[in-house]
Amino acid sequence: MSSQEMVTLTDRESVRQWLRENREARRSVGFVPTMGALHAGHIHLVSQSLAQTDRTVVSIFVNPAQFAPGEDFDRYPRLPDEDREMLRQAGCHALFYPDMTAIYPPGFQTKVMVEPLGSELCGRERPGHFQGVATVVAVLLNLVRADKAFFGLKDFQQFVIIRRLVQDLGMDVDIVGVPTVRENDGLAMSSRNRYLTGEDRRRATGIHAALSAARIAFESGEREAGRLEAIARRILIEAGIHRIQYISVRAAATLMPVKTVLADGVILAAVKVGDTRLIDNMLLIAPG
Amino acid sequence: MSSQEMVTLTDRESVRQWLRENREARRSVGFVPTMGALHAGHIHLVSQSLAQTDRTVVSIFVNPAQFAPGEDFDRYPRLPDEDREMLRQAGCHALFYPDMTAIYPPGFQTKVMVEPLGSELCGRERPGHFQGVATVVAVLLNLVRADKAFFGLKDFQQFVIIRRLVQDLGMDVDIVGVPTVRENDGLAMSSRNRYLTGEDRRRATGIHAALSAARIAFESGEREAGRLEAIARRILIEAGIHRIQYISVRAAATLMPVKTVLADGVILAAVKVGDTRLIDNMLLIAPG
Repeated sequence: MSSQEMVTLTDRESVRQWLRENREARRSVGFVPTMGALHAGHIHLVSQSLAQTDRTVVSIFVNPAQFAPGEDFDRYPRLPDEDREMLRQAGCHALFYPDMTAIYPPGFQTKVMVEPLGSELCGRERPGHFQGVATVVAVLLNLVRADKAFFGLKDFQQFVIIRRLVQDLGMDVDIVGVPTVRENDGLAMSSRNRYLTGEDRRRATGIHAALSAARIAFESGEREAGRLEAIARRILIEAGIHRIQYISVRAAATLMPVKTVLADGVILAAVKVGDTRLIDNMLLIAPG
Repeated sequence: MSSQEMVTLTDRESVRQWLRENREARRSVGFVPTMGALHAGHIHLVSQSLAQTDRTVVSIFVNPAQFAPGEDFDRYPRLPDEDREMLRQAGCHALFYPDMTAIYPPGFQTKVMVEPLGSELCGRERPGHFQGVATVVAVLLNLVRADKAFFGLKDFQQFVIIRRLVQDLGMDVDIVGVPTVRENDGLAMSSRNRYLTGEDRRRATGIHAALSAARIAFESGEREAGRLEAIARRILIEAGIHRIQYISVRAAATLMPVKTVLADGVILAAVKVGDTRLIDNMLLIAPG
């Protein structure tokens, strides 16, 4: 592991200054926005950024606006010392660790929405969530004017929304989607996996098993969305996961509902295991 | 008058390329967004930009999203040849004349809102108007990454909303407000003045007279918003302007309602003269 100086930036002006220095030196900049509580999935985003750009900045900001009322904003894990050490060891060049007013200055009243994309799937279960995401990502991408920004495909709907937002608003940054990193037993890495204990942790492996079963059926020629969803649903229930918020086959590019997967599709799931809400997805890539 | 080559840019990539060339040459860029049908007020914005920056780009785009249903989008004046000639003579360096898909690419679904600012005053009379303005300005400012962007203070609420938007979203551009240019009889210049004929044109001078009367009262020591509004309202009615959408004294920095003008205020009016909706405003600057 490389070890080096990593600068910490906390306000808007220091981020601008860091960017100016890199622009002057004609270095490309990669950006990885996170909410902290970093795991191997985040570090994989950082390594992608390090490979594709000259300088990498990671932000850590637990964004209150993207938590719906009653969600886990207060108990969301905050581990600044561990996060900082992981980033330093990964070779990250700068940490943007803003205080609240660096993101939301006094009098803040701007909202960014991507609709209808933001009210589908997770947006139906988490009112206001994607408006909170779109707004904070617009702010972060404007502050950190990177050449590339890296997002995990585990949050597939978020990725599609951000790509749409950036295209619609004409922001000059490449949005790079990075494949999901999984535990050995297939569970998608997530900061919320920390909430899972004992039997719930074991049960959670059913999500990946269910999506994999749908993909195997797809690769064997099944193209009907309803049948693929039914296959996944059966495995979830067999695994003891009964609270299924959605299991849905969509067009991968737009997340529009499909009856038959003609071009590339994606199967997405959101479930509750114990008190913990978990999401995952798998691409259904048509051969040829 | 200077006469020179003025380049015309119609798509996103050509704007980006023009900006890159200016960045490389370390020239500062000024931006004047308009809806065309240019008049001396617009040309004053251009001259401010020419004075304060190295290169000036003007956009002309009649934005459908900022017209409420039943408003004058279809009949809004479109005079591309006259506009182009005025800009050329003014010394403008580039015209950004986008087609619809350069602003709204296929599948566009992003909305930018500044609330509650955008639902006050004109926002109350024109549902969706400021959402349309905020969205298109966000797009335009992202495409034309200028150092400074120039907006007329005639549209005072629009100016406050755009300044708020830019601060909130962390966009790296100075928003410059430019004082209103008026006809000899005081009428604020507006593309919609073309709609005024005969008696309506004469009657419209009552707006400036009414706001001026309120300012004179303010300068004579009157600080109560309600009394200042009553003075202006009386003059409007005496001038034969009976359809007053609002006449309101607000804090100039935030447009919050005030009962007493302690720091800087502004009096804003929206009226209908014949079929034509007209707005104007006047700053109430406390002495000392």
